[in-house]
Amino acid sequence: MARRETAPLLANENPLDEFDDEERELLRKEEAKHIRRERARMILCLGLAIVLTSSAVTITFYFAKMSLGRSRNVIMMVSDGFGPASQTYGRSFYQYKNNLTEDKLTSLDEMLIGASRTRSSDSLVTDSAAGATAFACAIKTFNGAIGVDPMGNPCGTILEAAKDLGMLTGLVVTSRITHATPASFSAHVIHRDMESEIAEQQIGDYPLLRQVDLMMGGGRCFFLPNTTKGSCRTDGRDLIKEAKEIYGWKYVMESKDDLLALTGKNGDTLPLPAMGLFHLDHMNYEIDRDNEKEPSLKEMTIAALAMLTGQKNSNQGFFLMIEGSRIDMGAHNNDPVSHAYEILQYHETVKVVQKFVRDNPDTLVISTSDHETGGFTLGYQDDPDTYPDYLWKPEVIDRATASTEALTLQLFAYNNQPGSAGHTQKDREQFVKTQILDKGLGITDPKPEEIAYLANKDPDYLKVLPFLGHAISRRANLGWTTLGHTGVDVNLYATGDGYGKLSGNHENTEIGVTMADYLKVDLSYITRKLQKSAQKWYQPKEPQFFTRHTRHQKSGQ
Amino acid sequence: MARRETAPLLANENPLDEFDDEERELLRKEEAKHIRRERARMILCLGLAIVLTSSAVTITFYFAKMSLGRSRNVIMMVSDGFGPASQTYGRSFYQYKNNLTEDKLTSLDEMLIGASRTRSSDSLVTDSAAGATAFACAIKTFNGAIGVDPMGNPCGTILEAAKDLGMLTGLVVTSRITHATPASFSAHVIHRDMESEIAEQQIGDYPLLRQVDLMMGGGRCFFLPNTTKGSCRTDGRDLIKEAKEIYGWKYVMESKDDLLALTGKNGDTLPLPAMGLFHLDHMNYEIDRDNEKEPSLKEMTIAALAMLTGQKNSNQGFFLMIEGSRIDMGAHNNDPVSHAYEILQYHETVKVVQKFVRDNPDTLVISTSDHETGGFTLGYQDDPDTYPDYLWKPEVIDRATASTEALTLQLFAYNNQPGSAGHTQKDREQFVKTQILDKGLGITDPKPEEIAYLANKDPDYLKVLPFLGHAISRRANLGWTTLGHTGVDVNLYATGDGYGKLSGNHENTEIGVTMADYLKVDLSYITRKLQKSAQKWYQPKEPQFFTRHTRHQKSGQ
Repeated sequence: MARRETAPLLANENPLDEFDDEERELLRKEEAKHIRRERARMILCLGLAIVLTSSAVTITFYFAKMSLGRSRNVIMMVSDGFGPASQTYGRSFYQYKNNLTEDKLTSLDEMLIGASRTRSSDSLVTDSAAGATAFACAIKTFNGAIGVDPMGNPCGTILEAAKDLGMLTGLVVTSRITHATPASFSAHVIHRDMESEIAEQQIGDYPLLRQVDLMMGGGRCFFLPNTTKGSCRTDGRDLIKEAKEIYGWKYVMESKDDLLALTGKNGDTLPLPAMGLFHLDHMNYEIDRDNEKEPSLKEMTIAALAMLTGQKNSNQGFFLMIEGSRIDMGAHNNDPVSHAYEILQYHETVKVVQKFVRDNPDTLVISTSDHETGGFTLGYQDDPDTYPDYLWKPEVIDRATASTEALTLQLFAYNNQPGSAGHTQKDREQFVKTQILDKGLGITDPKPEEIAYLANKDPDYLKVLPFLGHAISRRANLGWTTLGHTGVDVNLYATGDGYGKLSGNHENTEIGVTMADYLKVDLSYITRKLQKSAQKWYQPKEPQFFTRHTRHQKSGQ
Repeated sequence: MARRETAPLLANENPLDEFDDEERELLRKEEAKHIRRERARMILCLGLAIVLTSSAVTITFYFAKMSLGRSRNVIMMVSDGFGPASQTYGRSFYQYKNNLTEDKLTSLDEMLIGASRTRSSDSLVTDSAAGATAFACAIKTFNGAIGVDPMGNPCGTILEAAKDLGMLTGLVVTSRITHATPASFSAHVIHRDMESEIAEQQIGDYPLLRQVDLMMGGGRCFFLPNTTKGSCRTDGRDLIKEAKEIYGWKYVMESKDDLLALTGKNGDTLPLPAMGLFHLDHMNYEIDRDNEKEPSLKEMTIAALAMLTGQKNSNQGFFLMIEGSRIDMGAHNNDPVSHAYEILQYHETVKVVQKFVRDNPDTLVISTSDHETGGFTLGYQDDPDTYPDYLWKPEVIDRATASTEALTLQLFAYNNQPGSAGHTQKDREQFVKTQILDKGLGITDPKPEEIAYLANKDPDYLKVLPFLGHAISRRANLGWTTLGHTGVDVNLYATGDGYGKLSGNHENTEIGVTMADYLKVDLSYITRKLQKSAQKWYQPKEPQFFTRHTRHQKSGQ
């Protein structure tokens, strides 16, 4: 083996020639092992190189994208007045109506990630104004406050901050667009009832000028001069005219036809800024809605997403707030019928948004409620003397064909129509029994005292409203404890880009913080811009305002 | 530079000699760069090697540990009858009592990960028996069923499966140990009211023999022969004697002193199997508990964890079910006082468990409720004619010093004491006003009709109970809709090893599945063992059983 110490000098000389077969075999094996080892080392290094290179490329690309301003979208969905029991109720009713088994979930269930604590700065039980301001400004404030802090000074909202970034902004609701939730994202006033002022700010008449690119909902009455029939304004300003002539709004829709006129156009030709004010007041409850005249929340959402993503400047992303506004109002009336159908429509709208996120992954979607309404429960003890039934009866709700609000208006109309003075007690009882209870609520077993109460010659309609709600709730085994709000934590749902940060139990303000962090915006910068003016433009102009308005009013808080 | 094409043949020849200084410098830099690159590659490969090797070692170790049977623990905590509103209520009251700000959370809040759907096989509204069987057997069954399937046949429970693995098993509750929740883990009978039979099975008198190593709670009356005062049994069996003599139970505690006698001993000397039956009936509500006589849920839990981990065979891990049983009963009585203090005690117990998990990371902890009770809400409309206040008043609850159950018993005792026949209406009114309302509930503004109702000569105590609850609830702005259960999804909390799988919205049965998966056990194997016998040992022995028992009874479902 000594010769092995001298390295072969000639390339073609086989170093194994001098060994016997066994030694050669051994050496060949060693050589092969060595080669395999070498190869393995090479493959390992190559693999590492590939991993590292691709990581580096990804990281570089990511930061490049970040610094170039990646287009990000935020969709904040608000199910107003929708507590945990409302979701269990909505799911169970959805299963019943669609003949599904108990394991079939709603769109919303897939997104459950935690809960939101809803208290305002002055009460465990918030109203929608303080609740929405917590989302919009990421601060706790007093009940009734619209985009203002506990001192009554305006606070920058996530919508305004998004606009400041060059993003498009939208509001899609079924209440008046001037109502507490949409208002808290797009206006600043010290009381939610200042809806005339809210409308003014929404079209652009406030220090930041126009911030909203798209708004759809009800509430046209606050945009019409008080000389027009149906106006809710105390002054003669025509905000629709001002919106078009001063603030550059391009398209004002008033009907479903106006919205349908957009269908088929591609995004580019859909004009923004645009508003759709589809009702003078709140839009109709889903169960009462005339599908020819008013779009649904789902239809408005489909249109809004097309408009916000189809613009030339859509590459900057958008902020969109979508509210199932009247889920809350059904609960205020303790009406399980309107409440149920508003929830089902909200679930349908969630499906639209979920599809959008699948197609547009750079989108953060949050869905939550500002508070619970009604003290709604899935268990009601009708007879205090027996142990309560452990039941609920979805078929009772399924038989109803109208909201208790629509039925109360029907009763009012019947009692106030020409010739109603000639109605006998028997006439009224017949009307109540057939039109209101049977045809309207599907109640075929009315008690004599129920008919007598409703057939009263001069009913108190504000009491008739919950009376009808309780009549059907009792039969379905549903309970309510108040016509107002309650303080229970509400469910928190999220999906899309970065949604995981919201897992667990959160203060409602953290939802605002999460949106601001996601968009990398500084809300306090907007706050400083808003507070620059010495004028108190967010306070009521009329000194007598507060003598006319209390903090809470009966309907739709 | 042409000469560079011929490689130097002699080792000592410096290849740089033939170049000028500038070229040499350049080449040296290139050489240095090359060497640095080479070094970097080496370091990289070395790093990779280290990472891969350590990964391999870790993985090997992990699988080795798995195959050797890693000791895993499961702690299932049940907050009976505790819906979402109860947690908001408990947190707010905790903050009030401890003078904390609204952002200070309870132990439970840190663990929120989703919600559990509670329906049973026959109703959206479950009872505790079907609810606990869903956790224990991972199946939906009918209301009233204890560890049996919808056909009434026994189903293997997670406790029995854990025992089959050689793990230790425990039950810690504040109700009778024979009550629905603990029973569903440790017994099989077709009706929850078969508590005599449940007790027999719990000590070991059923086909699987003794499965429980440790049980603590109330319910001694079902273990005593009917010849003993305070017994609830219909027969003369002395189950405590049988437990010791036939089934090998080593230690039977009846008082806090008995439990304290264990303190200071190290685990090894704590005898198992052991039972603590600290009350004939349910243990006292936390607010009424005599700290000298009865341990708290927290104290029992501390002792249980020490006993389960201190045994010679503790290396096999344990399954422990801990129930805040009487959270539910406070809600059944619509009593916000007992409800609140049971919740606070549950939170304290959660802290103990959280500490245990920090020290024993191979532990899965789940905390959830079987259902909501009471239709409890944080908002109550007292006056139907005005808009409800958006308030709740924790100070009202804080002034109370006793449960409404204890106060009702006080009133009963007053009306039935020797000489009570001589009480005048005025005497009774004075007693109600000072002892029951003021001293007991902290109500200093009783209405005349409240005093008159309670001072009735022959009150209906079953009605007095919720009357007192409603009197204080109304003043605190809290609402209830039933003395029974409701169907709302309940909060789902988890922490520890593998808890993340429970994120989101789940059927209650999935909690059972998760525990079984975590322990890698097959519940159906236990089911087959249970169903092997031709005897229907899980059915009532007395044919008249069902004439005496309805499915739901008034207290503590």
